[in-house]
Amino acid sequence: MTRPTYVAGVGMTPFGKFPDAQLQTLGRDAAYLALRDAGVPQRAIEVIACGCARSGILQGRESGVGQLVGWTLGIEGVPVYNEKAYCASGAMAFNVANMAVAGGFHDVALVVGVEQMSRRDGKGRPITSDGMQLETELGFTPPVYYALAARRHMAEHGTTREQIAQVAVKNRQAAALNPIAQYRDPITVADVLASRQVAGPLHLLDCCPTGDGAAAAVIVSDEGAARLRLTPRVRVSAAVAGTGLYRDQARDLTSFSLDESCARRAYEQAGLGPADISVAEVHDSFSIAEIIHYEDLGFCARGEGGRLVAEGVTTLGGKLPVSTSGGLLTRGHPLGATGVAQIVELTDQLRGRSGPRQVTDARVGLAHISGGFHEGDFATSGVTILERLSA
Amino acid sequence: MTRPTYVAGVGMTPFGKFPDAQLQTLGRDAAYLALRDAGVPQRAIEVIACGCARSGILQGRESGVGQLVGWTLGIEGVPVYNEKAYCASGAMAFNVANMAVAGGFHDVALVVGVEQMSRRDGKGRPITSDGMQLETELGFTPPVYYALAARRHMAEHGTTREQIAQVAVKNRQAAALNPIAQYRDPITVADVLASRQVAGPLHLLDCCPTGDGAAAAVIVSDEGAARLRLTPRVRVSAAVAGTGLYRDQARDLTSFSLDESCARRAYEQAGLGPADISVAEVHDSFSIAEIIHYEDLGFCARGEGGRLVAEGVTTLGGKLPVSTSGGLLTRGHPLGATGVAQIVELTDQLRGRSGPRQVTDARVGLAHISGGFHEGDFATSGVTILERLSA
Repeated sequence: MTRPTYVAGVGMTPFGKFPDAQLQTLGRDAAYLALRDAGVPQRAIEVIACGCARSGILQGRESGVGQLVGWTLGIEGVPVYNEKAYCASGAMAFNVANMAVAGGFHDVALVVGVEQMSRRDGKGRPITSDGMQLETELGFTPPVYYALAARRHMAEHGTTREQIAQVAVKNRQAAALNPIAQYRDPITVADVLASRQVAGPLHLLDCCPTGDGAAAAVIVSDEGAARLRLTPRVRVSAAVAGTGLYRDQARDLTSFSLDESCARRAYEQAGLGPADISVAEVHDSFSIAEIIHYEDLGFCARGEGGRLVAEGVTTLGGKLPVSTSGGLLTRGHPLGATGVAQIVELTDQLRGRSGPRQVTDARVGLAHISGGFHEGDFATSGVTILERLSA
Repeated sequence: MTRPTYVAGVGMTPFGKFPDAQLQTLGRDAAYLALRDAGVPQRAIEVIACGCARSGILQGRESGVGQLVGWTLGIEGVPVYNEKAYCASGAMAFNVANMAVAGGFHDVALVVGVEQMSRRDGKGRPITSDGMQLETELGFTPPVYYALAARRHMAEHGTTREQIAQVAVKNRQAAALNPIAQYRDPITVADVLASRQVAGPLHLLDCCPTGDGAAAAVIVSDEGAARLRLTPRVRVSAAVAGTGLYRDQARDLTSFSLDESCARRAYEQAGLGPADISVAEVHDSFSIAEIIHYEDLGFCARGEGGRLVAEGVTTLGGKLPVSTSGGLLTRGHPLGATGVAQIVELTDQLRGRSGPRQVTDARVGLAHISGGFHEGDFATSGVTILERLSA
C-alpha cells in the first residue's frame, strides 16, 4: 500500500549550551544544512514535521515551533505538524513526515527536531518527565529508576559496575571524533566512578546532559527525487512507534517490553533482523540504559549486555558499533532534537560520510528512542531502520 | 494513491467550566462515547492522535496527553501523535489520524481533542496566542485584531454593527438546541450591544468564551469497516491544512488569504464547490470572524458576509446553516477540542442525528478552523469536508 521513502539529506547544529540562541534560529540552522545537503530548495518542501518537547514549559511557546522554523526559512502555505512525545518527540516528527510521504500525500518533507534547555523563560520548573510531579516529590526521578535497573541488572546477570561505566567511556571515545558533540574530552572508567554520585550506583558521567540544539532531515518519495533530480542513497526501511505501559517492569526492571515489541515490528517491516544491523543509535540516556537496549533490540541475549560492551562489540571498530555519534550521553540530548540527530548520524554513516568515526561498510542502521516515563509507567518507543541503497 | 476514509463514530463531553475535571477524564469520556457510537472496541484502535494546545503551560503536561487518554481507556501499544497548533490543534490531530488511515498505515484511528482552560496549575499566564508576548504587552491581542477587522469591514463594505451582532444571536439560537453547549440562554442584538465592550466595536458577547471539554472521532478505512462489521455513513472527502503568513492582511484586514487557499484546495480534493455545502462549522472566535470566513470560504462574494447573516441564509432553516452547534461563540472553545467538536457536529448532521437543530437533507459538511496569530503573522488553517454516503 505505502510507497518507498528516502532520506535525501540531513543537517544539525552543534549540541551544547547556547542560552542566547532561539528555537527558530537553531531549527533554521539545522534545516538549512539538511536542505543544502539534500540539494532541495525551500520552495520544494510540501510538509513540515517538528519535534520539540518542552517549548511551552521552558519558553512559553507550546504550539507552533515548526511554524516558526518554517517561517524563519521562508517556507509557507504547507501543513506543519508539531509533535510532543517527551524524548521521543523527534522520532514522532520523523514518523509523521515519513507517513506523509510514504502514504502518498506529499513528495518532499522536512523534519526538524529542536530543543533549548539551557534558557528557561518561565519559572524554573525541574526538568523531569511530564506527569511525574508526585514521583519527583518522592524522589523517584529517571536517574533513580535507572539506578534501580542497574542494581537489578548487576544482581541478576552479574553485570559489573565497570561494564556499565564502559558505556560512557565508549560513547565519549566516539564523541571525541564528532565535532558537534557536547562533550568530547576522553574519560576513563575511573573518571566515571570518581564523578559525583547521582543515584547509586550511577554517577554524573553515567547520565546524559541537558543541552540545546537542532537536527533536521529531508524525506522524499521516488516522485519527489525524480522531480528534484536527486539520487537518494538511504532508504527508510522501517519506522515504528508505540506507546504503552512499561508493564513488565513490575516483574523485571531490566527490560522494556515496549521496546522489544517495537523492535520486533520494525524488523518485520524491514524484513531484517538484529544480525543485519551495521550501526545503531540507541536511547543511552543513562549508561545502564544502553546495556538494557542491546538486549531489548536483540543485539545480544538477555543478560549479555554488559559483556557486549566489555568485549568491544559495540565500540567503533567492533562488530556492531552503537552510539557512534557519542549518543545522548556525550553528543548530548536536547530532548526534541535527539530523535532526528539519530537519523542524521545513521544517514551519514550509511553514506560513508562520518570521517574518523566511519563504520566500515555500514549497510543498515537502527535508531531507537524512548520517551516519557510516568503515571501508569507508560511511555513512547520508536524504532527506525535505514538502509544504504546499492550504488 | 490514498484510499477512502470514513468517520465511523463521534462523541463529546459538554463544553463549559469544569475545574475539577482532568484532561484524561475529559478525553476518556469523549473517546468512550465515540467508540460506543462507532461500535468499535478499544482493542481495535491502531493509532491515536490527540489535539491539545495548552496542557504544558496550563497544566504542566506538555507531552503525552494522548498517551494519558489512551492509558485511561486501556489502549496501549499503538503510536500516539500529540498535535500542538493553537486553536487548530484538534484539526491537525484529525488530519494526522486521517493520513494514517488514508495512507494505508492503519485501519482504525481514534482522534481526541481536549482542553482544560478553567484550571491553571501553573502561574496565571494570560491566555493569548503563543509568541504574542510583545503584542500582548502592546495591547494587540486577538480581540483587538478582530475589532480592527470589524471596523474595516464596516467601512469598506457597509457591514453594520447589528449584522455583526446577529452572528452571536444566530449562534446562540443554535446553541439553545444543543444540550452540550456552554451558553444556551437566548440573546438579542440589543443584549450583544449592551454587554461590556471588549475592543470597540466588539462587545463581550461578540467574543468566544474559554472553557473545558473534549471531543472524539473514530476514523476507519474500508478494510477496518469490513473487519469490524461497520457501515460508516460519512466519508472524509477532503482534509487540508496549511500554515502561512496572513500576509495580505497588511493590505486587507478583512480577508485571510491562507483560509482562501486552504478552502480552494479542499474543494478541489473533494471535487465540490461552495454551492454544494449543506452545513458548515467555521472558526467564529469572534462574531466578525464568521462573516469574514463566509467570504474566504466562498459562501458569498467579498463584502457580502454581513448581508448573508442578516438575510438568514446561515441561520438554522436557511440555505446554508453555519455554526449549527452554536460555534465557538456559544457551544464554546476549549482550544484543542474545537477542531474535533466541529467534526462531531457535522457527522451528526450528515447522519440526521441533530434533533431539533437538524439541517434538512444535509449531504455535505465543511469544517473550517484557524489557529495562531503572531510574529510574522503566520497561522494554521484547516478545512475538512465530510460527505454523507447514500444509503
